[in-house]
Amino acid sequence: MNTRPTVRLRPKIDPRPLRHGAPWVFADQLVTDRRTKALAPGTVAVLEDADRQPLGLVAVNPNSKIIARMLDCDTEAEIGRAWLAGRLAAALEMRARLYEAPFYRLVHAEADGLPGVVIDRFGDACVIQPNAAWAEMLIEPLAEAVAEVTGCTTLIKNGTGRARGLEGLEDETVVLRGGVNGPVGVPMNGAVYMADLTGGQKTGLFFDQRPNHAFVARLSRGARVLDVFSHVGGFALAGLAGGAVSALAVDGSAAALDLAEAGARASGSEARFTTMKADAFDALSQLGEAGERFDVVVCDPPAFAPAKPALDAGLRAYERVARLAAPLVASGGYLTLCSCSHAADLAKFRTACIRGIGRGGRQAQLIRTGFAGPDHPQHPHLAESGYLKALTFRLLS
Amino acid sequence: MNTRPTVRLRPKIDPRPLRHGAPWVFADQLVTDRRTKALAPGTVAVLEDADRQPLGLVAVNPNSKIIARMLDCDTEAEIGRAWLAGRLAAALEMRARLYEAPFYRLVHAEADGLPGVVIDRFGDACVIQPNAAWAEMLIEPLAEAVAEVTGCTTLIKNGTGRARGLEGLEDETVVLRGGVNGPVGVPMNGAVYMADLTGGQKTGLFFDQRPNHAFVARLSRGARVLDVFSHVGGFALAGLAGGAVSALAVDGSAAALDLAEAGARASGSEARFTTMKADAFDALSQLGEAGERFDVVVCDPPAFAPAKPALDAGLRAYERVARLAAPLVASGGYLTLCSCSHAADLAKFRTACIRGIGRGGRQAQLIRTGFAGPDHPQHPHLAESGYLKALTFRLLS
Repeated sequence: MNTRPTVRLRPKIDPRPLRHGAPWVFADQLVTDRRTKALAPGTVAVLEDADRQPLGLVAVNPNSKIIARMLDCDTEAEIGRAWLAGRLAAALEMRARLYEAPFYRLVHAEADGLPGVVIDRFGDACVIQPNAAWAEMLIEPLAEAVAEVTGCTTLIKNGTGRARGLEGLEDETVVLRGGVNGPVGVPMNGAVYMADLTGGQKTGLFFDQRPNHAFVARLSRGARVLDVFSHVGGFALAGLAGGAVSALAVDGSAAALDLAEAGARASGSEARFTTMKADAFDALSQLGEAGERFDVVVCDPPAFAPAKPALDAGLRAYERVARLAAPLVASGGYLTLCSCSHAADLAKFRTACIRGIGRGGRQAQLIRTGFAGPDHPQHPHLAESGYLKALTFRLLS
Repeated sequence: MNTRPTVRLRPKIDPRPLRHGAPWVFADQLVTDRRTKALAPGTVAVLEDADRQPLGLVAVNPNSKIIARMLDCDTEAEIGRAWLAGRLAAALEMRARLYEAPFYRLVHAEADGLPGVVIDRFGDACVIQPNAAWAEMLIEPLAEAVAEVTGCTTLIKNGTGRARGLEGLEDETVVLRGGVNGPVGVPMNGAVYMADLTGGQKTGLFFDQRPNHAFVARLSRGARVLDVFSHVGGFALAGLAGGAVSALAVDGSAAALDLAEAGARASGSEARFTTMKADAFDALSQLGEAGERFDVVVCDPPAFAPAKPALDAGLRAYERVARLAAPLVASGGYLTLCSCSHAADLAKFRTACIRGIGRGGRQAQLIRTGFAGPDHPQHPHLAESGYLKALTFRLLS
């Protein structure tokens, strides 16, 4: 017997996208009577179309613009530890196939069938971001399932970030199981990165750039590398592992640069590594004025255009980065420009980069367009969610 | 003194894109007086804007819709062997940095500063496609420059393909230097492919899929692989090199499958390799009816939408491939769908694939979007020329 609450699509809403896998119901698509509005955030309910035909199980959050997230097309499914373990096992199988060491994004939300849930794995530790109310409610069975499926002994709940605010959830980071003493070493692309699992940005390290790091490493043999907006040294340390003669990491955060230096020591490349704590735009200008040249330059700024209202200003900022970086690249050298802005699609971002390189006085060829790695799968109905782009140009004369 | 002919933009044509690197002048942008029309196809001329300000050196072909192709912004440049060698050396530097063995696309036309010229390198042999009239005229100094810069002893001119027709050039394939005895072994991603440099499609082998082959190889450990539209076995042999337990290659060409089998023998994987000569759509249907399942399925069809008029029919064909292939993928397995259609952009191709997978009764996550490798650079003003797309989906229940 199904005694769950029921929520219903408004009469004019086409149910077919939901039948074919669409993951979200927006607030204006659902009948929001008093009963629905009174549901506790995270309540599991049966979603019906306007003709009372069931569409599946959803997690409802009356406080969110995404008022319902599809959990399972089987309305009889029991959303608990065993169900969570099934989704986690499917996610793990793909990562275990692709990565030699257990360091990856284990769960990437909707695409892995766990809406709003992000889990990054660092060896024996997992950092869980329950960015939707249902997962916050089920954090204990979720933690149990993660421990069971992965064998991880340290579990951290990271409750920071913009997405939780949209769900009406509070900021809090807690150790759920085990514990960590200081930063954790993360092997990737021949380098070792240091990740601060409790105090760092997001879940401590960005796994998404891994294939783009790898490509820059291939370009870096014998090269002088400049990594601007370096965070914990993602591109710089990969370049050094790829045989760079030197790498300079520029970031505004002393804490991030400390981790980058610790990573260089752990990678055995500290003798070739230097850091500069500075505003990235200032640093690009100063290096340009000083006539510095590098064979490989990477700029991986924060999201300048996280959402549509910021798009125009964001594209101008990307163009400015390209314009300031291009003169720093030696003839025949390589410039990698990244964007993690949802609002700036690939074509717009590419145009901004090409214009900036041109205004920086350089001719270029585009040799690679990269995205986030396969541990960051995309839900087919959210394929525009490919937020991360990394364009590598070769700069000629 | 510059005694070259001059061609001039029409009065209302904005010269700025050409100053900023645009590579082409279309017939309706140029003053086509009797003098210009009388220029021999391939003539090198000075391009001026309507105010008689020089824009650069162009190769003119009055018979082509692309009536002029920018060669050099320096109007004093001497377009001969030394100039060609300079462009080739710049192209070689990037490939030599990226590839351990000398097997790659050496020159990718406009993006490498040699408009209309494609050169693929196979060890000591190069296959040159002079797909623009100026290169046909300069084939002898071009061959000399290729021999000088690469040291290659065998040079083949491959004069087949659609592009030459648009330039008014004839089909002909000739050995310019040296010679080859039968197919050449090409090492890529741990496999060895056999390329027929004088009788095969295009230049004998498609290097563009190399990074996508590599990703499929990573997925293939312990897997049963199906490679449909296999040509000489690109994905099948890569999958076997990646540890597949079996691979079945389906193609309509017996000659291509013979080369695939020779490649499997050269790779030492012939015991795990089988071929099926069949129409790909028929084969997909038959395998589906027989209830066959594979862990890794790849479909890399010919261009169904090479140009805009074929777009709708092409997208339907891509959807059909996805619909027929999806049921063949085991639960949790992987489906890679490729398009080499210029007219089908990434978003349209992805939508066709997602719809086809849904109609094939499967839910999916998109784990990777790949393009041609870095030996196929894109000209920044022709960035939509990223014709090749390879989408890898993981199919769940």
